[in-house]
Amino acid sequence: MNTPQSDRSKPDSLRVELGERSYDILIGRNLIAAAGEHVLPLLSRKHVIIVTDANVAKLHLEALEHSLGHVGIKVDSIILPAGEATKSFAEVERLTGLLLDMKIERGTTLIALGGGVIGDLTGFVAAITLRGIDFIQVPTTLLAQVDSSVGGKTGINTHHGKNLVGAFYQPRLVLADTATLDTLNRRELLAGYAEVVKYGLIDEPDFFKWLEANGIDVVEGDEAARRHAIGVSCRAKARIVGADERESGARALLNLGHTFGHALEAECGFSDELLHGEGVAIGMVMAFDLSVTLGLCPVEDAARVQRHMASVGLPTTPGAVQGRFWSAQRLMEHMGRDKKVKDGRVGFVLARGIGQAFHPAYVDLAEVAAVLETAIAA
Amino acid sequence: MNTPQSDRSKPDSLRVELGERSYDILIGRNLIAAAGEHVLPLLSRKHVIIVTDANVAKLHLEALEHSLGHVGIKVDSIILPAGEATKSFAEVERLTGLLLDMKIERGTTLIALGGGVIGDLTGFVAAITLRGIDFIQVPTTLLAQVDSSVGGKTGINTHHGKNLVGAFYQPRLVLADTATLDTLNRRELLAGYAEVVKYGLIDEPDFFKWLEANGIDVVEGDEAARRHAIGVSCRAKARIVGADERESGARALLNLGHTFGHALEAECGFSDELLHGEGVAIGMVMAFDLSVTLGLCPVEDAARVQRHMASVGLPTTPGAVQGRFWSAQRLMEHMGRDKKVKDGRVGFVLARGIGQAFHPAYVDLAEVAAVLETAIAA
Repeated sequence: MNTPQSDRSKPDSLRVELGERSYDILIGRNLIAAAGEHVLPLLSRKHVIIVTDANVAKLHLEALEHSLGHVGIKVDSIILPAGEATKSFAEVERLTGLLLDMKIERGTTLIALGGGVIGDLTGFVAAITLRGIDFIQVPTTLLAQVDSSVGGKTGINTHHGKNLVGAFYQPRLVLADTATLDTLNRRELLAGYAEVVKYGLIDEPDFFKWLEANGIDVVEGDEAARRHAIGVSCRAKARIVGADERESGARALLNLGHTFGHALEAECGFSDELLHGEGVAIGMVMAFDLSVTLGLCPVEDAARVQRHMASVGLPTTPGAVQGRFWSAQRLMEHMGRDKKVKDGRVGFVLARGIGQAFHPAYVDLAEVAAVLETAIAA
Repeated sequence: MNTPQSDRSKPDSLRVELGERSYDILIGRNLIAAAGEHVLPLLSRKHVIIVTDANVAKLHLEALEHSLGHVGIKVDSIILPAGEATKSFAEVERLTGLLLDMKIERGTTLIALGGGVIGDLTGFVAAITLRGIDFIQVPTTLLAQVDSSVGGKTGINTHHGKNLVGAFYQPRLVLADTATLDTLNRRELLAGYAEVVKYGLIDEPDFFKWLEANGIDVVEGDEAARRHAIGVSCRAKARIVGADERESGARALLNLGHTFGHALEAECGFSDELLHGEGVAIGMVMAFDLSVTLGLCPVEDAARVQRHMASVGLPTTPGAVQGRFWSAQRLMEHMGRDKKVKDGRVGFVLARGIGQAFHPAYVDLAEVAAVLETAIAA
């Protein structure tokens, strides 16, 4: 591409407007190497503690430590085990203990360097240590850059389910370094891409159209396409979160595909058998199919959703998971345990078309079961 | 007394102004028996879970359950072990698990029935379960009624110290039933009374004067005196918290006597050897003595503080703790680990006189040590 280097080197910037909790999201290549200059002005005390996992540490920790140290910030680092199991009470207690061992003060800032697991855990620990210290997100997966690092949802899992314990707690800054995406395998990248598609489906039909034409460039690694997709996604999420920080209304739209997706993930024991983004991709196809079944949505729109997912290589039916027997009945049971259940009813996010999602739709359970049966049989 | 029954039966009401997080404090006799009518209008779902401890359950649980059930609220109760050890990560995990076992939803409300331990733990669990559910405080000790139930500080202890993990999370309502104070022993009551005195010392010299004349009635059980003392205390705390919810400035005044007090408590292992309020009473005397030593405060004001504490039966020197050897050096070490340490310095709340507290005062450590030595020798 002919984009001049001067443009490339300057990150895109956007602001999440939440009153006194407002913060910037910076998106650009090699932002980790320039983290010091962006982080320094936000610190009330020149001491940060980086929390990361063993995999990410190998790739990015040294660069981040160097950049922060270079501007005179004292840096400590804590490396946790990689994987969803780290989002547990045990790790919260252990991490909190390590921080207190280091004699942190209220002016100390945590930096979450990693994917959603590290961001969710670190954000939660920041929320509760000394009743709240600052934290900064440095997301290193596409999923974390477009979704989990923005909006302040933090938390851990219990044996009852995912993210059932946590806090709404906003970071002071998000640094999305697009260079980190080069280190992801294609499956991880696609899982993040599913959340990008989601923003088009919720209320940005023109963005979905753009993705139909350019989505493959985002996946293949075109820098300008990636920055555009991440920027639009973050802006969309920031807008929705700004209108409804604590998920009492509009924010629920961000769960498009997630009620189905969570049930699929739960059935797989939240294992690598089905990544979160893959579950969401299949779940969004199901949400559109259910919308068609209910006569809410043109069948052609549902077909476009299914086609676009398939075109980039995302799964669109439960059958994409190798060697698993699916039961509509069991999926229905998982949905009944969802955190969004209200007075025993499941409120779905459905759509009147691409870019026309709405919530809540309380649906006859027989209709839901029928859509699941069809998808399982596909 | 000749106060007509109609006045007595109507609770005093005051409001903590915190924008959308504002709430009422009701103070009156037998409020637990009337809890249903006050709680019902606040519920988004007619399901509450009472969290209490084994001691309080025997005294007040049945009355609260009955009152809530009477207005059609579904009530579940969880009884935890009594004592400071309950404010732990282990109990947070266990309580959260019990709530999730009960399939609580975001519209479920927790009610903390008990003293500071139950209030702090339940408030923290409410803050983090499903990323935040409503909770109501029904404090049953004088300490909880005038201090810990108001202002939204919730939390637990770690082996590093007290309240090092927690959240600022406001209740939806505080019901202070003065009848519960009849069930306290005198030592517990006096420990709470120390916090009442604190509000006079911070910035209400007329209230301190009133306490000099009427404080003994508060302790002895005069209903009108108690309601007045609790009301003034809650109003004072509400005003200070309203100005500084997250303790970045004025709220620190509420720590008058607490830096010394915490060090004394820490040395006693936070055991029943020295109750929190007793530590605060001694700590306030020390804070005034230090203020005198520094030439900030008239010696007569410090003497009045000491005299009033002693007159109701509160301890005023470390020597009041039977059979313990005190070391100024060790107390200094405990202070260095305080949560309020900033850049390695301890910021004291000192006073220019009764009702003229200020913060922060960074003091030569030799002066602090000298005050401790004198107090220990007294």
